[in-house]
Parts: sequence; structure tokens; C-alpha cells
Amino acid sequence: MGVYGRVGDMAENATPVRGYSASREQLRRRLARIQGQVGGIAKMVEEDRYCIDILTQVAAIQAALDKVALGLLDGHAHTCVIGAEPGQQDARTEEMMAAVGRLLRHG
Amino acid sequence: MGVYGRVGDMAENATPVRGYSASREQLRRRLARIQGQVGGIAKMVEEDRYCIDILTQVAAIQAALDKVALGLLDGHAHTCVIGAEPGQQDARTEEMMAAVGRLLRHG
Amino acid sequence: MGVYGRVGDMAENATPVRGYSASREQLRRRLARIQGQVGGIAKMVEEDRYCIDILTQVAAIQAALDKVALGLLDGHAHTCVIGAEPGQQDARTEEMMAAVGRLLRHG
Amino acid sequence: MGVYGRVGDMAENATPVRGYSASREQLRRRLARIQGQVGGIAKMVEEDRYCIDILTQVAAIQAALDKVALGLLDGHAHTCVIGAEPGQQDARTEEMMAAVGRLLRHG
Repeated sequence: MGVYGRVGDMAENATPVRGYSASREQLRRRLARIQGQVGGIAKMVEEDRYCIDILTQVAAIQAALDKVALGLLDGHAHTCVIGAEPGQQDARTEEMMAAVGRLLRHG
Repeated sequence: MGVYGRVGDMAENATPVRGYSASREQLRRRLARIQGQVGGIAKMVEEDRYCIDILTQVAAIQAALDKVALGLLDGHAHTCVIGAEPGQQDARTEEMMAAVGRLLRHG
Repeated sequence: MGVYGRVGDMAENATPVRGYSASREQLRRRLARIQGQVGGIAKMVEEDRYCIDILTQVAAIQAALDKVALGLLDGHAHTCVIGAEPGQQDARTEEMMAAVGRLLRHG
Repeated sequence: MGVYGRVGDMAENATPVRGYSASREQLRRRLARIQGQVGGIAKMVEEDRYCIDILTQVAAIQAALDKVALGLLDGHAHTCVIGAEPGQQDARTEEMMAAVGRLLRHG
């Protein structure tokens, strides 16, 4: 129930959210699927599968992780930035931008 | 003066911003520098320079564009999301996430 | 023993490789570590950890996957491109570039 | 005429290339177009255009730069890696992988 984002951070009047946000349950399912995909790659390596096919799977996992990241960012923006006390919104936005920067250059 | 972001979108009490935000003047300078870097690559191609050295410049331009994007996103978050009327904040956040998604996969 | 890459693709005189290439054992270890990192994120979600800290982990996994991809690409370049019969080298190079393109835009 | 790549690096029997490779003329045109796109963004900033629309253009330029990079990489693979003297092929491959790594994390 509800978008992922720490409830304690939400101001009283935070509006319900949609869009990119993911519920805890959706995140759990996506992460379980990604773990399975990584395991699938390990199996492909074991079975001596063609490098190019393995690389296609790596790119697919990176796309799935982008989706997880967007879901987390969106929940964060709604609950922890917009929903924060006014005095904290700017600091929270900076933190969020630093996170986007790390996603753009992979760490 | 001030972070880039359309002034008309700012609510009365929008707080002054820092961090990743870029002023119009900083954006102008960064974009002029990037244009120069792209021209530099064109010149390297003309002069038959080593492909790997040209690729290093391409990666540098992409990093500079990431910085431009972060500056625009940060200004947007402060003025057009946090600074928006409460009824518009969620729609603005979704727009922002769609933009982050396009940056992660380059269009 | 040896870099990952299908042995059957190697021409007689393929030279020993170094650099970014990863052995099957290194790939196995890296993939096991990545699976653990994804599980760690699932646990962070369960424990209601701060979104930004989770996003930092997502970026770290993306970086680890880049490293796996570079290892596979390098092995591929050495064994399946350079090591291929001359008549196949161009087709193999195109395949490799398509794979790099997918990595750049995540699928 | 011919794919971009330093001619002096080609071994006698290098095969003609296709695919992602770009001729010097194609590279010149693509880079001129990218310079125009960067100038277009500068104009959008001047005209106070909506941040999200500017960010869409930034993502489009990143995609165009990816295409330039793939063209250069492909030309490099054909002429400077496959086409190199056998004793140089491994060193050239390592250089190419380092370049791919820089493209993946933008510098």
C-alpha cells in the first residue's frame, strides 16, 4: 500500500502519487526478477553461451535497474522532497540531484 | 541573476537555491564551451587524429552535457516542482522523472 | 583457465590476452557478488531504508555490470573478432558494435 | 572515401567495411548537426523555454554523440584493430575497451 518512501518524512498534506512511483511490492517483484536475470547470466557463462547474447542480457538488466531507480526517485520526489517540511526541501532536492548524477555515470 | 527556471512558475515563498543549479549565465558559458568542444572534434576528424583520442573527447562532451542536464533538472526541481502550486507538484514531478528516464537511456 | 570466449571460435594463432578480459572464474565471482548486491537492495527496501542510500547501491550495481560487460566485450574482441577467420571478422565486429550500442542506451 | 580510421594503420588485406562505420564526410555532417543542436539549446535558454523541453534536447544530443562514438569505434575496430599487424592487435583492443569504458560512464 502506498508508494515506496519513508512514511515519517511525509508532511500531513502529501498528495497521493502516481506515475513512475513503485510500491514496495512492485519493487520487491522487480528486484526478485533482476536477481533471477543475474543468475541467468551466470548460467549462460557456465554453459559457454555466445558472449554477444550474454551482453544483451546485461543491457536488459541495466534497463531494469534504471526502472527501479526511476521508481525510487519518483517516490523520493513525492514523499521526501515535495512532502518534506519547507525548510528541508532544498537540501532534499540537492541529495536527489546527487543521486541522479551517480545514476548517469554509474557510481 | 537567479537559477535557471521559469520565474512565472515560482510560488511566492520559493526559497533561494544552491547546489547543482546553474544560472542562465553559467548555462550559457557551459553550452558555448560544449559547442567549442564539438567543433574541436570536427577539427580532429579533419586532421586525421587517432580515433581513440577523438572518443575520449566525445566522452568528455557527454560528461559536460550531464552537468548541463543536472543544472537544468535542479533548477526545475526547485522552481517548477517545489515552487509550483500544490495541485501541480505531482504532474511536474512526473514530467521530471520522464526527463531523467530520457537522460538515462539517451533519448 | 583462459579468458571467457568460446574456444571453438579461436583461430590457431590467437595470442594470449590480458587487460579487461575476465576469466570464467572472475565472471562467476563478479556475478555472484552482483546477485548479492541486488538481494541487499531488496533487504534495504524491506527495512524501509532511505531512498537515496538505495539509489547509491543501484548506481554501484550498474557500475559492476559495466565491468562485467567490458570483460565480456574484451574477451569477445580477442577470441571471437581478432581470433576469427578473416572472412568472419567484419560480421563479428558489427555484432560487437551493436552490443556496445545496447550497453550505451541500456537495451 | 572509406571509413574513418587512419589509413596508415591498415594492413594490406584489410577488408572493406560496412555497418556502424562512418565516413569522414558522415562524421563531419553529424558533428555539424550536433553543434547546431547545442546552439539550439543555448537559444532555448536565452528564450526562457521550459526546462523539460531543453532536457529533451540534451538527451537527443547525447544519443547523437553515441552514434558518432559508435561510428568511430567501428572504424577503429576494422582499420586499427583487425587491420593492425598481429603483434599490435591486443594492445589496440585494450585501448578500444578503455574507450568503451569511458563512454559507458561519460569520461
